[in-house]
Amino acid sequence: MTAAINDDLTELKSRLAEVIDLGQAAAILGWDQETMMPPKGVQFRVTQQETLNGIIHERFTSPRIGELLQKLEEPSVLASLSEVDRSIVRVARHDYDRATKLPRSLVKELAAATTRGVEEWRQARRESRWDLFAPALRRIVDLKRQEAACLGYTDHPYDALLDEYEPGMTTARLQPLFTHLQQETLALLDRIDQAPRQIDRAIIQQSFDIQAQRAFGEAILRQMGFDFEAGREDTSTHPFTTSFGPTDVRVTTRFDPNDLAVALYATIHEGGHALYDQGIPVELARTIVGQAASLGIHESQSRLWENFIGRSLPFWRYALPVARTYFPDQLAHATPEEIVAAVNRVARSLIRVEADEVTYNLHIILRFEIERQLIRGELEVDDLPARWNQLMDQLLGIVPPNDASGVLQDTHWGSGLFGYFPTYTLGNLYAAQIWDAIRRDEPGLDEHLAAGDFRVVLAWLREHIHRWGRIYEPEALIQRATGEPLNPTHLTRYLTEKYSTLYGLS
Amino acid sequence: MTAAINDDLTELKSRLAEVIDLGQAAAILGWDQETMMPPKGVQFRVTQQETLNGIIHERFTSPRIGELLQKLEEPSVLASLSEVDRSIVRVARHDYDRATKLPRSLVKELAAATTRGVEEWRQARRESRWDLFAPALRRIVDLKRQEAACLGYTDHPYDALLDEYEPGMTTARLQPLFTHLQQETLALLDRIDQAPRQIDRAIIQQSFDIQAQRAFGEAILRQMGFDFEAGREDTSTHPFTTSFGPTDVRVTTRFDPNDLAVALYATIHEGGHALYDQGIPVELARTIVGQAASLGIHESQSRLWENFIGRSLPFWRYALPVARTYFPDQLAHATPEEIVAAVNRVARSLIRVEADEVTYNLHIILRFEIERQLIRGELEVDDLPARWNQLMDQLLGIVPPNDASGVLQDTHWGSGLFGYFPTYTLGNLYAAQIWDAIRRDEPGLDEHLAAGDFRVVLAWLREHIHRWGRIYEPEALIQRATGEPLNPTHLTRYLTEKYSTLYGLS
Repeated sequence: MTAAINDDLTELKSRLAEVIDLGQAAAILGWDQETMMPPKGVQFRVTQQETLNGIIHERFTSPRIGELLQKLEEPSVLASLSEVDRSIVRVARHDYDRATKLPRSLVKELAAATTRGVEEWRQARRESRWDLFAPALRRIVDLKRQEAACLGYTDHPYDALLDEYEPGMTTARLQPLFTHLQQETLALLDRIDQAPRQIDRAIIQQSFDIQAQRAFGEAILRQMGFDFEAGREDTSTHPFTTSFGPTDVRVTTRFDPNDLAVALYATIHEGGHALYDQGIPVELARTIVGQAASLGIHESQSRLWENFIGRSLPFWRYALPVARTYFPDQLAHATPEEIVAAVNRVARSLIRVEADEVTYNLHIILRFEIERQLIRGELEVDDLPARWNQLMDQLLGIVPPNDASGVLQDTHWGSGLFGYFPTYTLGNLYAAQIWDAIRRDEPGLDEHLAAGDFRVVLAWLREHIHRWGRIYEPEALIQRATGEPLNPTHLTRYLTEKYSTLYGLS
Repeated sequence: MTAAINDDLTELKSRLAEVIDLGQAAAILGWDQETMMPPKGVQFRVTQQETLNGIIHERFTSPRIGELLQKLEEPSVLASLSEVDRSIVRVARHDYDRATKLPRSLVKELAAATTRGVEEWRQARRESRWDLFAPALRRIVDLKRQEAACLGYTDHPYDALLDEYEPGMTTARLQPLFTHLQQETLALLDRIDQAPRQIDRAIIQQSFDIQAQRAFGEAILRQMGFDFEAGREDTSTHPFTTSFGPTDVRVTTRFDPNDLAVALYATIHEGGHALYDQGIPVELARTIVGQAASLGIHESQSRLWENFIGRSLPFWRYALPVARTYFPDQLAHATPEEIVAAVNRVARSLIRVEADEVTYNLHIILRFEIERQLIRGELEVDDLPARWNQLMDQLLGIVPPNDASGVLQDTHWGSGLFGYFPTYTLGNLYAAQIWDAIRRDEPGLDEHLAAGDFRVVLAWLREHIHRWGRIYEPEALIQRATGEPLNPTHLTRYLTEKYSTLYGLS
């Protein structure tokens, strides 16, 4: 590398590092707002965030970054860089293009439309009145179509939006994955409907003291490998994980005094996200590749811990005695099998965030269908409720009694998040494939889990996923980690085997 | 006002507002660091703060702000502005000059020297070894002398440093105030030494449950008028108050399980600061005058609530029954008089932060003497311990057995804070003068306090102090609020009367 190239690279990295610092500062303000801020604080917090985000955008889209990228992208220059530095140039170009291709006017209109969108969605859902939300959503969809056109795409306009959350992912790539998943899930669901065995949830639906739930959750989180010297757990309305660098990662949970599963699975889920964030190498942390590979990969970590581990029999062989120290009366006669059944009951239900592991993906497939038709103009906002109910009937066999529990249930569209939902199911697909790779590499896995020893799992994830940050695109990372491209049969086979056992299917 | 002037003023305000937003963001990061951050988080927090503060400095010292100020300072332009806008121009000029007069190299050297200074001071105090701190302090004093020279001054180089914390204050103005205070305090202290009555602190030195102490403190804070919808109280090693705008003001306290006074007076003291911050008008909050007039005025608010109210007999007539609901056993037989005596015991002692209301100012006068001699080169760092001990003997009649409890006790000098200490005693002087004005305006004050009704006090402070933010210089504000310039006899008369009663002096 010549001195000039080295100077350019150093300047690029230092400009990006500053943007990362400011992004972490904004994340701290966001965490505080959700967990600590007194109610009246919101007035100035909104302005503080606007100013901070304005400066982040201004600095990241500076023409100087474009110049540096152009120089570093010269083939001969690129060839002289290390693999990590090449990935820095690639990722910076990806994000820089996304940030600079949109005209300022469109960004402003989107910000205004989604601010209004969230507000009107809230009102519309409260009153279950679609007509209160439709005008705002029409505007948002129109702007998102413009956004897709500005960003550009080869095949389908929806690809331009998907790429924000799952770099490189396309509609054409998703379609066959989701079709396979849909067919297998519908078949499994039919069998579960006819199952000889019914599942009772009474064991987890007793009175559980919230302080004890908190302590139990922290014990599990610590056992998973979460470093409380480099993070903490608090309470918020909607559980989330946020990172201010790998040595300060915060998770939140929420409590239901009459359901042991609510806080526990929020904790394990967010804990999975947090282990990923804590596993980003410190030396990458102030670079643009010092973050998760994608939302889908991030979700694979939370789902793997929540479902593949946390809802398994080996896990509860370990966790039940622990839980009994906090809830000796409630769990005196419980068995691991009884709890595993209770936390895995399958039901055709209306609300995505309450769905079980089997039906969950159908809720996502429904949204994927709608989003891609909306963005390509094959579906209009006015036809959305009817289409929603039709798809619910087709996929889940139930129709919402009102729009609040149907098309109005999620905040995403009012916030302008199109292309986001598929990452949840991608997370499940990635998780299943990773889980099979771990099982293959660690033959005694169930015994480790039953002993509460999660170190082999965490070590595997650290080695094959966490330490790579965003150096590879999601599918390349999965290919490297598991030895094959994304393959949906890992998930469908896992679901079929697990629920056949649970429901006593032949 | 012409359209051109209006444009300039609007641009100036908008540039300053952005700097204020970023300053509040940095304050949120600082609060989090002291109260919530996990230990390993410090690594990236330092970088986040450096980046944020670098951008704040860059934006505030932008040449464009200098240009706008110059245009707005034209006498004919200035005359056309409102009083508030004129004060914005004046304060912006004051701070802009301070920020731009220092060469970048000096700012960097100071930052490096004080980072090292704090670290070596910590080590030196732990081992009570002056020689571990002296080299770093020599460097800092040298740089602070350079800073004073760069900032400029009319009379005394120390004035340039004082002006940072107490705009407009000078050595020549302080000297006679402190001399009067010293003479009167020494005379009072001699009489207390001979007092017929001794004070026993046993009543407040029992075992007090920390959760109950927390609830008691919050009850008092709420009664003072602190708005918990616009603020919160947490725990930290050193109590402090921080504001992210008047609708989000945070205080902290600390607990001693064997002393009721520690947490309570930290809460009342910080509560006094917080009421000031919550009292800044929302419409001023994003302007450069939407902050405290000075550190001295800020301290007057905390001292007024802590000492003039919180350590008074009327206060304890109200507070004892409240305290008894939290500590029924410990306080069953306590009287208000007994507690007031216990929380006001006077002692010649070594440590400033533990000093009582009478001797406290002697600790400050000692530091003022040393600082102004150091900065003018009349005293060198090597002679500091000897000078410290000599002044302790002269003012307090005791000599520290080691440097840890002497010249090494405070963190200020290692942090480069010269000119800061006097604001503590200025706070006491302002508070006494304000207190006399409130008593004059509110004849039934003691009855209100004894009934736990602090609304007249808060209303008076809001009207005469809080709502003016930084529109007036400190002494102008005091003159407007009380009808006379700063006059030290208010404090000395208050102390003499209060302690004559407490100690039964003739």
